[in-house]
Amino acid sequence: MKRFLKTFSQKAGLPPGSLVHVGDAFTGEVKIKAIRYTESKFEEIAVPDNDALLHLKDKEGIIWLQVDGMHQPEKISAIGDCFSLHALTQEDILNTGQRPKMEEFDNYLFLVGKILSFDEGASTVQEKHFCLVLMEHAILSFHEAGANLFAAVENRLQKANGKIRKKNTDYLAYALFDAIVDNYFLILEKIGSQIEELEEEILTEPSRESFEWLHFLKRELTILRKSVWPMRDVINSLIRSDSELILDDTLKYFRDIYDHTMQIIETLEAFRDVTASLLDMYLSAISNRMNEVMKVLTVIATIFIPLTFIVGIYGMNFSYMPELHWRWGYFVILFVMAILAGGMAFYFKKKDWF
Amino acid sequence: MKRFLKTFSQKAGLPPGSLVHVGDAFTGEVKIKAIRYTESKFEEIAVPDNDALLHLKDKEGIIWLQVDGMHQPEKISAIGDCFSLHALTQEDILNTGQRPKMEEFDNYLFLVGKILSFDEGASTVQEKHFCLVLMEHAILSFHEAGANLFAAVENRLQKANGKIRKKNTDYLAYALFDAIVDNYFLILEKIGSQIEELEEEILTEPSRESFEWLHFLKRELTILRKSVWPMRDVINSLIRSDSELILDDTLKYFRDIYDHTMQIIETLEAFRDVTASLLDMYLSAISNRMNEVMKVLTVIATIFIPLTFIVGIYGMNFSYMPELHWRWGYFVILFVMAILAGGMAFYFKKKDWF
Amino acid sequence: MKRFLKTFSQKAGLPPGSLVHVGDAFTGEVKIKAIRYTESKFEEIAVPDNDALLHLKDKEGIIWLQVDGMHQPEKISAIGDCFSLHALTQEDILNTGQRPKMEEFDNYLFLVGKILSFDEGASTVQEKHFCLVLMEHAILSFHEAGANLFAAVENRLQKANGKIRKKNTDYLAYALFDAIVDNYFLILEKIGSQIEELEEEILTEPSRESFEWLHFLKRELTILRKSVWPMRDVINSLIRSDSELILDDTLKYFRDIYDHTMQIIETLEAFRDVTASLLDMYLSAISNRMNEVMKVLTVIATIFIPLTFIVGIYGMNFSYMPELHWRWGYFVILFVMAILAGGMAFYFKKKDWF
Amino acid sequence: MKRFLKTFSQKAGLPPGSLVHVGDAFTGEVKIKAIRYTESKFEEIAVPDNDALLHLKDKEGIIWLQVDGMHQPEKISAIGDCFSLHALTQEDILNTGQRPKMEEFDNYLFLVGKILSFDEGASTVQEKHFCLVLMEHAILSFHEAGANLFAAVENRLQKANGKIRKKNTDYLAYALFDAIVDNYFLILEKIGSQIEELEEEILTEPSRESFEWLHFLKRELTILRKSVWPMRDVINSLIRSDSELILDDTLKYFRDIYDHTMQIIETLEAFRDVTASLLDMYLSAISNRMNEVMKVLTVIATIFIPLTFIVGIYGMNFSYMPELHWRWGYFVILFVMAILAGGMAFYFKKKDWF
Amino acid sequence: MKRFLKTFSQKAGLPPGSLVHVGDAFTGEVKIKAIRYTESKFEEIAVPDNDALLHLKDKEGIIWLQVDGMHQPEKISAIGDCFSLHALTQEDILNTGQRPKMEEFDNYLFLVGKILSFDEGASTVQEKHFCLVLMEHAILSFHEAGANLFAAVENRLQKANGKIRKKNTDYLAYALFDAIVDNYFLILEKIGSQIEELEEEILTEPSRESFEWLHFLKRELTILRKSVWPMRDVINSLIRSDSELILDDTLKYFRDIYDHTMQIIETLEAFRDVTASLLDMYLSAISNRMNEVMKVLTVIATIFIPLTFIVGIYGMNFSYMPELHWRWGYFVILFVMAILAGGMAFYFKKKDWF
Repeated sequence: MKRFLKTFSQKAGLPPGSLVHVGDAFTGEVKIKAIRYTESKFEEIAVPDNDALLHLKDKEGIIWLQVDGMHQPEKISAIGDCFSLHALTQEDILNTGQRPKMEEFDNYLFLVGKILSFDEGASTVQEKHFCLVLMEHAILSFHEAGANLFAAVENRLQKANGKIRKKNTDYLAYALFDAIVDNYFLILEKIGSQIEELEEEILTEPSRESFEWLHFLKRELTILRKSVWPMRDVINSLIRSDSELILDDTLKYFRDIYDHTMQIIETLEAFRDVTASLLDMYLSAISNRMNEVMKVLTVIATIFIPLTFIVGIYGMNFSYMPELHWRWGYFVILFVMAILAGGMAFYFKKKDWF
Repeated sequence: MKRFLKTFSQKAGLPPGSLVHVGDAFTGEVKIKAIRYTESKFEEIAVPDNDALLHLKDKEGIIWLQVDGMHQPEKISAIGDCFSLHALTQEDILNTGQRPKMEEFDNYLFLVGKILSFDEGASTVQEKHFCLVLMEHAILSFHEAGANLFAAVENRLQKANGKIRKKNTDYLAYALFDAIVDNYFLILEKIGSQIEELEEEILTEPSRESFEWLHFLKRELTILRKSVWPMRDVINSLIRSDSELILDDTLKYFRDIYDHTMQIIETLEAFRDVTASLLDMYLSAISNRMNEVMKVLTVIATIFIPLTFIVGIYGMNFSYMPELHWRWGYFVILFVMAILAGGMAFYFKKKDWF
Repeated sequence: MKRFLKTFSQKAGLPPGSLVHVGDAFTGEVKIKAIRYTESKFEEIAVPDNDALLHLKDKEGIIWLQVDGMHQPEKISAIGDCFSLHALTQEDILNTGQRPKMEEFDNYLFLVGKILSFDEGASTVQEKHFCLVLMEHAILSFHEAGANLFAAVENRLQKANGKIRKKNTDYLAYALFDAIVDNYFLILEKIGSQIEELEEEILTEPSRESFEWLHFLKRELTILRKSVWPMRDVINSLIRSDSELILDDTLKYFRDIYDHTMQIIETLEAFRDVTASLLDMYLSAISNRMNEVMKVLTVIATIFIPLTFIVGIYGMNFSYMPELHWRWGYFVILFVMAILAGGMAFYFKKKDWF
Repeated sequence: MKRFLKTFSQKAGLPPGSLVHVGDAFTGEVKIKAIRYTESKFEEIAVPDNDALLHLKDKEGIIWLQVDGMHQPEKISAIGDCFSLHALTQEDILNTGQRPKMEEFDNYLFLVGKILSFDEGASTVQEKHFCLVLMEHAILSFHEAGANLFAAVENRLQKANGKIRKKNTDYLAYALFDAIVDNYFLILEKIGSQIEELEEEILTEPSRESFEWLHFLKRELTILRKSVWPMRDVINSLIRSDSELILDDTLKYFRDIYDHTMQIIETLEAFRDVTASLLDMYLSAISNRMNEVMKVLTVIATIFIPLTFIVGIYGMNFSYMPELHWRWGYFVILFVMAILAGGMAFYFKKKDWF
Repeated sequence: MKRFLKTFSQKAGLPPGSLVHVGDAFTGEVKIKAIRYTESKFEEIAVPDNDALLHLKDKEGIIWLQVDGMHQPEKISAIGDCFSLHALTQEDILNTGQRPKMEEFDNYLFLVGKILSFDEGASTVQEKHFCLVLMEHAILSFHEAGANLFAAVENRLQKANGKIRKKNTDYLAYALFDAIVDNYFLILEKIGSQIEELEEEILTEPSRESFEWLHFLKRELTILRKSVWPMRDVINSLIRSDSELILDDTLKYFRDIYDHTMQIIETLEAFRDVTASLLDMYLSAISNRMNEVMKVLTVIATIFIPLTFIVGIYGMNFSYMPELHWRWGYFVILFVMAILAGGMAFYFKKKDWF
C-alpha cells in the first residue's frame, strides 16, 4: 500500500549508513539556497558547487541553507560532510519514509517532520519529508522537491519583520515548524469542509459514491494521524530536551506549537468520530431505503394477490357455479373487490406504510 | 467543518505574534468594564479610551477588567501593552480557536477556557473563547461578545457576599471559572433531557428524524468533549503549578472545580455510552419493522399463491376435466381452499407471525 | 437525563460555599444518632437539638455520629460548625450529586462515596450519597435518607464482636466502607443473575422486550461504572495518603477493600463484554428469523409461480391449442406439474431451506 | 451470573476477618499432606490432627504443606494459627472468589492465584482458587478440592531432579507457579483448537449453533482474561518486591513466568481479535445466504410474473380478440414467451444472479 | 490454533530448565558456522564437533557463531555449556514459542526476536524463532532452520564494507537486528500491496472470496502485531539497559532500529484501520446489492401484479359482463394497461429504482 509505506525494498540489504534515496523519483536538480543574516544584514549567497559550501562558514552571522529536493545522495552527502553530520543523520535525510523524530547529537539537533498537502479532487493527503538540522550558527532545512512552505519566513527575514533577525537559530527553527503546523490547519479545514459536504449529501441523498468518498476520507485521516502524532512527540521532546541550542526564551514559542499540534490531534479525533457516525448514518439510510422498497412491494402484493385469487375463482370452468349467472354478479364482485382493496389500503395507511 | 475548527486561513502565513482576530466576525464595539475593589470598597471605573487604562493601576485595590468581545485587535493590544502582556498572550487572546491551556509568565498566569451555550432548537453547542490573565493586583477577563456569565460574580463582589472581597485575585479567578464550569452542568442537563426524550421516542416510534437527532447529539457530544477535556488539564496544571499567585488556601477551591470537571467528563462519557446504545436500539427497531413487513408479505403471499394456482387449474380449457362437471365440484373446491387457507393461517399464527 | 445527573440547576449561580441541598426532595426530618464507645463501654446518646451536639465532645471515647438524610442544610451546618468542618466540606455533604473523592484537611479526612441499591423490577440502580468525616476521636457519617447499611456494624460495636472496639476511628471507617463495598457485590450478583436470565431468553426466544431489557441493563452498568471507578480512586488515595489518622495497621484492611473494588470493576467490565455479546446475539437472532421468513416465502413462491404460469397457458382461449383436446391432456399436465413441484421441493430440501 | 461471581451473599454483613468459606460446597474432608526436605532428605509426614501441625516446625529442613480443599474453615484456621497467619490472610484463603494478589506480611509473603481447567464438551473454563504462603522455612499451598497440579513438582522433589532440593522455598514457590502457568498454555491450546474448528465450520457451513458456540467461547475468553491479567500483576509485584524471601538468583525464574503470562495475555488478545473477526464472518455469511435466497426469489418471480400476465391476456373472454383465431397464434405466443424468458435468464446470468 | 501458539504440550510438566525443543519438527542437521574477525582479518572456522567449540575462544578477535536450526537440544546444550549460558537461556533458545525479550546476565545479554516471512499465495505470515547472545568477544546467533537473513551482513564483514569490522560485538548485533527489522518492512509492503489489491476488488466486484481474504489478512495482521510489539520493547530495554556490552556510540544505531519498529507498528495500526474500513465497505456492498435485487423484484412485481389482476377480471366467466362484448374492448383494455405500466415505470424511474 503505497499510501502507507515508501518503497523500502529500495534499501533492503544495504549496510546501515548507506546513502540511498528512498522515495518517489524526481528528475530535476536538487536546489540549494543559502541565506546569511545578522541583526543588521541579510544576503543570499550563491552555492554553485560543493566548494562554495565550505566557504559558507567563513563569515559571521547565521546561515540558513535551504535544500529543495533530497533525491541526489551525493549533494546531501557533500552538505553533510561540510557540516559534519553523522552518517545516520545523512541516511535519515535521504530516507523520505523516515517518521518524525528528534535526535540530539554533540553539536546539533536533528529534527524530522512531515509537510502535508491535500489534493481536493482525489481527496488524498500528500506527505512530504522535511528535515532540519539546528546548529549554533546554522540551520539546514531539507524538504522534498516542491514542498516549500517557507517563502513567508524568508520574506520576514529579508524585511526584518518582527524579531526574527534579532534571535538565534532556535527561533528560526520555530518559525519553520510554525509554518509547517499552520499548514496542517489549512488541510484540516479542507478535510473538514469535505466532511461537511459529505454529511449534507448523506443526509439528503446517500449514494454508493458517498460511501466511497467516506472510505477515502477515513483512509486519509488515518494517514494524517500517522503523521501528526509523532510530530507532537517531536515538539514535546524538543521542549523537554536540555540542549543548549534551545534558549529558554524560545521554549514558549515551541510550547505554542505543541498546543497547536494538540489542537490538530483533537480535531482529527473529532473528525474520526464524525466519520464513524457518518458511516452509521449511511448504513441506516441504506437499510431505510430497503425498508421503503419492501413496503411498496408488500402493499402492492398484499392488495392484489387476494384480488387476483378472487377473479381466478370466477374464471373457473365448473359447470355449476351459480354466481356466474346472477344478473349483477359481475358488478357485485367488482364492488366487493373495491371494498377489500380500499380496506387494505386504509389499513396500510394507518400503519404508515405508504 | 466550521463546527470543529475556526477559520485558520485568516491567519496562515503571518509571523508569530501577529495580532489578528481569528473567529466569527462581530460588528459592535468591544466593551470594557473596569471594577476596583478592596475589602471595604467597590467602584466601577469608566474606561472611555486607552489613556484611562494607564491610570487604572494608580490606586490600591484589586482591579478586574472585563473585556466583552475580542474582535478589535487594537483594543486588545492597548490593554496588553498597558499590563505588559507577552506578544504570544495577546495573540492567543485574539485567536478564538485557541484550545484551553495554562501558561505561566514572569508576572502573571494566562488561562484560556471555553464558555459553552446550548441552542436547544438546533441541538447545537456554541463554544465561546474565554481568556483570563491573573496578576497580583489585577485580573483581566476576556470573553467573546455576548458570552457573559459573570453577572452573579459581579453582584457578589458589589454586595460583599461571602468572602470574595476579603480574598486575593486568585479567589476571583476561581469564582469566574466556577461560574463557567457550573454553566457546563446546565448544558449537560439540557443535553441529558434531550437524550431522555430521544430514548423515549426511539422506544415508542423511531423515525428517520430520531436518527438524525441522534447523529447531531453525538456530534455535539464530540465537540463538548473537545472543550472539556483540555479544561480539566488547565485546572489541573493550575493546581500543580507552584506559582505564588495561587495561595494554598485557594487550592482547595480549584480542586473543587477539578472535581466538577471530572464529573462533567464522566457524565459525557456516560452520555456517549448511552447514545451508542440508542443507535443500536434504533437500528434494531428498523430491522424489526422490516421483519414485520416481510412477515405480512409472506403470510399473504404464502396463503394466496397456492390458492390462485388451484383456481388456475380449473380455469384450464381441457376438453376432458371430469371435476368440472361434478354437481358440487365448485363448492368442494371452495371448501378445500378454505381448509387450506385456514390451515396455513393457523400455522402462521402458531409461529407467531401475525 | 436524571439517571446521570442530579439537578444542578438548583445550585447554579450561587456563591461557592452556599449551603443548599442538591438532590431529590425528602420530607421527613433528618435523623441524628450518636454513639460513644471505648474498649469497655458503648452508649447511645440522644441528640435532641443542636446544643446537645456541643456536649458530645466533652467525654472521652470515640464518637460516631450517624446522620440519616442530608436535605436540611441547617442541621448539616450545625454539625459542621460544631466539628469545625470547612465550608467546602459542608457544601459537598449537601450536594448529593458530588462524585466520590477524598480530601485531606488539617484535622480531618473527608471521604465521599456512593451507596447503591438495585430495584430488580425496573432493573435500575439507585445511587445514594454517602459522606464520611474521619477525625481522631470522632467519625461523622452522612447518608441520604433511607440508605442505611450500617446496622450490622453498629451491632458489632455494641456486642464488641471482633476487635472493632479496640481500634481507632480509622478501623470504624474501614468497617463502614467495607459494608458499602460488600453491598456492591450483592448488586452485581443481582445484575449478574438478570444477565444470565436474559441470555437464556435471547438464546431461546428473543423478543423486542429482551432487547429493551438489555438496553436498560447496559445503561445501569454505565451508571454503576460511573460510581465504582472513582470509589476505587478514593480508597487508593486513602491508602497512599500519609495522613496520621490512618494507622499502618489499618492500611492492610483498606488494601483489602481496594482489592474488592478492583474485583467489582473487573466484573463490571466482564458484564459489559457479555452484554455486548448478547446484543450481537440478539441482532443475529433477528436476522436469522428474517432469513427463515424469507425462505418460506421463496419456497412457496418459487414452487407455485411457475405452476400458475402453466395452468395459465391452458386457460388461454386460442382456437387452435392441440393439447386441450388430447384425451389425457389434463392428467398429463397435472402429472408434469407434480413432477416439477416435487423436483423443486427436493432441491430446496437439499439446500436445507425448509 | 455465577460464571463471573462467587456467591458473595454467603458473606455479606459479617465482620471483617470472619472465617467463612465462600464458594462451591464440597462434602469430602480437606486433605493435608506435609513434606519435609533438605538437600539430602525427603520425607512425607502424616498430619492426622491439628496437634501434628505444631510439631512440624520442630526439625530442620523445608516444610511444604499442601492443603487440598478450603471448605473447612476450622482446618484452615488451625493451620493459620499454627503458622501465625494474619486474620485477613486466613479470610482470603477461605474466600474462593478472591482475585489474584500478592501481599507482604512481616514474616511471609501471601500470594493468591487461579488454577484453571477447561471442559471441552461444554466449552467452559473452570476457575479454582489457589493460595500460597511463602515463609523462610515453609511453604503452605492451598487449592480447591481436586485442583491439584503439583504431582510432577512433588515427584521432582522426591527424586531430587534438577536443583529443586538445593534451593530455598522461593524456588519451590516458583516451581508451583510455573506448573499453574504452564497449565494455562494447555487451556489456551484447547481453546485455540476449538476456535480453529469453529473457523472451519463458519467458513464452510455456518449455523445457529456455530454462533452460540462462538458466544460461549467469547464469554470464556472474558473469564480467562479476568483471571490472567491480575495473575500477571501478582508475578510482577513479586518481582518488584524487595522481600528478603525472594533471592536474587530466583528472580530470573520468576521473570520467566512473567514472560509466560505476558505471552498468554497476548495470545488471549489475539484470540479475542479472531473471535471478533469470526463474528463478522458469521454475520456476513448469514446476510450472504439471505442474499442468495432473495436472488432465487427474484429470478423466478421476475421471469414468471410477466409470462403469467401474457397468458392471462389470452385467457380473457373478449368477443373480439383477433390473435385468438390466428392459425399459429398459440405457438407464436409460446415462442414469444420462450424468447422473453430466455432473455431474462440470460440477463440474470450476466448479472451473476444464479 | 497453531497460528497463535506453538505446541506447548510438548513441554508441560517438565522441570524448569529442561532442554526440550518446542516447535515444528525438522529432520536435517543443525548447521553451525563460526566466523572470527578482527579489524584486519576475517576467517571462517570449521566446527566439525563439540570439541572444536572449545578451541574457538583460544585466539583473539571477535567470534560470530551462527546456528541454523534449534531442533537438536544436545547441540544447543554443547554450545551453551561451552559459552557458560544459564540453563534458562538454553531453554529459551530451544523454545521456539518464546516471545521476544531481553535479559541481562552477568557476562552476556540475551535477546529473543522473531524472523518473519510472508507466503503470498496463502496470505500467511511465518514466524521463526531468533536468539542472540551478546558477549564481549563473541556473538552467538540462533535461528530456526532456513530462516537465514544474514548473508548480506556476512558479506559486509568479509569485504570489510563500512565500519563493521572496526566495531565491537554490539555493532554486529545491531547489524543483525537491522537485517531482521528491514525484513519486516518487506513483509509490510507485501501485505500492503495485498490490501491495495483487495480494496480494488471490493470496490469493483466484492465476492465471498474477498471477504475470506480480508479475514485472513486481518488474522495475519493480528499475528504480526503479536510479534512486533514485544520486539519494540526488546529494543527499547536494550537502549535503556546500562550494560557495558552496549557502547554509547552504538546506542544511536539501536535508537534507529527503535524508530523503525515504531514505524512498523504505526503502519500495522494503519493497516488495521484500513481493513476495518474495508470490512464496512464489503458489508455495505453486500447490502447494496441486496437492495438492488429487491428493487428489481419490486419493480417487476409492482408493475405486473396489478396488470395480471386486470386480465384476470376479463377472464371471469360471468354471463353478464358488458365490456366483453364491446367492439374495441380488448384494445381499450390493452391500452389502459399500457398506460398503467408506463405510469408505474415512470414513477419508479423518478424514484431512481432502476
